[in-house]
Amino acid sequence: MRVVVLSGGVGGARFVRGVADVVAPEDVTVVGNVGDDVNVLSLHVSPDLDSIMYALAGINDDERGWGRAGETWRVLESVASLGGETWFKLGDLDLGVHLVRTQALHAGEPLSRVTARLVTALGIETRLLPATDDRLRTWIGTPAGEFPFQEWFVARGHRDEVDAVRVEGDEAATPASGVLDAIDAADLLLLAPSNPYVSIGPILAVHAIRDALAARRVPCVAVSPLIAGRAVKGPADRMLTRMAGGTSPRHVTECYQGLIDAIVVDEADASDLDGLGDVRPIVARTLMVDGDARRRLAEAAMGAVPA
Amino acid sequence: MRVVVLSGGVGGARFVRGVADVVAPEDVTVVGNVGDDVNVLSLHVSPDLDSIMYALAGINDDERGWGRAGETWRVLESVASLGGETWFKLGDLDLGVHLVRTQALHAGEPLSRVTARLVTALGIETRLLPATDDRLRTWIGTPAGEFPFQEWFVARGHRDEVDAVRVEGDEAATPASGVLDAIDAADLLLLAPSNPYVSIGPILAVHAIRDALAARRVPCVAVSPLIAGRAVKGPADRMLTRMAGGTSPRHVTECYQGLIDAIVVDEADASDLDGLGDVRPIVARTLMVDGDARRRLAEAAMGAVPA
Repeated sequence: MRVVVLSGGVGGARFVRGVADVVAPEDVTVVGNVGDDVNVLSLHVSPDLDSIMYALAGINDDERGWGRAGETWRVLESVASLGGETWFKLGDLDLGVHLVRTQALHAGEPLSRVTARLVTALGIETRLLPATDDRLRTWIGTPAGEFPFQEWFVARGHRDEVDAVRVEGDEAATPASGVLDAIDAADLLLLAPSNPYVSIGPILAVHAIRDALAARRVPCVAVSPLIAGRAVKGPADRMLTRMAGGTSPRHVTECYQGLIDAIVVDEADASDLDGLGDVRPIVARTLMVDGDARRRLAEAAMGAVPA
Repeated sequence: MRVVVLSGGVGGARFVRGVADVVAPEDVTVVGNVGDDVNVLSLHVSPDLDSIMYALAGINDDERGWGRAGETWRVLESVASLGGETWFKLGDLDLGVHLVRTQALHAGEPLSRVTARLVTALGIETRLLPATDDRLRTWIGTPAGEFPFQEWFVARGHRDEVDAVRVEGDEAATPASGVLDAIDAADLLLLAPSNPYVSIGPILAVHAIRDALAARRVPCVAVSPLIAGRAVKGPADRMLTRMAGGTSPRHVTECYQGLIDAIVVDEADASDLDGLGDVRPIVARTLMVDGDARRRLAEAAMGAVPA
């Protein structure tokens, strides 16, 4: 079974690993968000692609919840002592990735190609594609003004309420090479339990990707990132409350209008399945506490495909 | 007494520290070579400026002879594991400098200004100026072809004999802001014991700097980098043998024709002081084994100024 997963960062990355554990890893293609890519200290950082890579390679830091296991911070200490910018936490091992990527981009290599090289170097068999090789940047509209995604998320600690999400570059962006072919060849399309607005949204902002999902001939299943109406981590619940009017399965489903056939919701949300229309609910335990939990969630989502 | 020192990397950096110890540090301006600047992993590395900064801040690694004390190599290990370029050894602490510098240069800040910021952040009172803010790159002509300086020096281990040194950008390069004023205001000009061809040469390749030295009204003293006709480190002796025909004080002096009034030579070379013309020899012990030796050498060079 060939599966395509659209994914954002940490939560999505865990799910992606569960899917790769259940399906043969080489039959999985992950399409990663690049709307929160950011230039830090002259380096091109792709936090979501990296979270997915680290999860798939098993070198992510499970305790801290982001970045790499065994990480150290020598470079950032040096930068701090020089008065440089340290708001975005770049670890030493992590920096190796950003340096190799940035050098390749400066040399004219597309993001998708250097990502493929990094994936191979890390021994990952799953394919990871950025949604686009074009420049796509997520902006967050708040009562305090509009901010680049990482400035709002990291520097301001995503404390500002969100009124709007704008994806700069969406009109011109075309899918990275391989994305549409993978969607076309897939037996199942999955939307990872990532933030619908700032993680999955910028992927769908690439018109040709949204159109391909809308025109699908195979099931597309979203996994809700909420448990009992609350985000496991991050601001998804507050964003849904403010922008969609609530955090029930219906509100998540409405973010993917016309794009999904089923939605996996947590047992804690199973009592409120009204208003899903023709989107079929799949109730499961969605908290990915360990490898077994990840795999069970992946299997639940894949249950949408007729055997 | 106001002193200007033209300096290359490690050896020059030690001498510069000796000068700053002897003169009030704020009365010393160092003009550093940028011909061996190099782009590594998308970062702008200025090895000579950094060697001088580290020496002046007392954070250089005396045992290894280059880079920073207490250095670690986590980033480069990560880069290596990803198949990235590792021929140029960038330590973690060192990388902090390159990141801050590169970001500033990308933002349009001149090299001289970000250098000044780094110097201040490191608590250095001596002024350090790059010879130029313009792009200047040293190329090494060898029987095996012409190579960028660092490719010849580091990647090929400076094993190739050198037939010619070419400084790309010399015609257009203008001195960094402050260089000519410092030379004009100086009571003494010093050429550090650096390689005449690839360390001091590219500074003098900036025409306005060479012209200012040629038109000097104060003494200019070079310190020979050779001891008993041999380089303490590096290829200066082999280069002099091949390109100047020998390694006596005369051959070093001829590299600075019309630009110096005296040359400090090691006791081991005092028996061969023929052919210096009107350049006065100053015999001293030139091996900078410790702080005392550095200061004595600086004092010997400064003895050229009438009290």
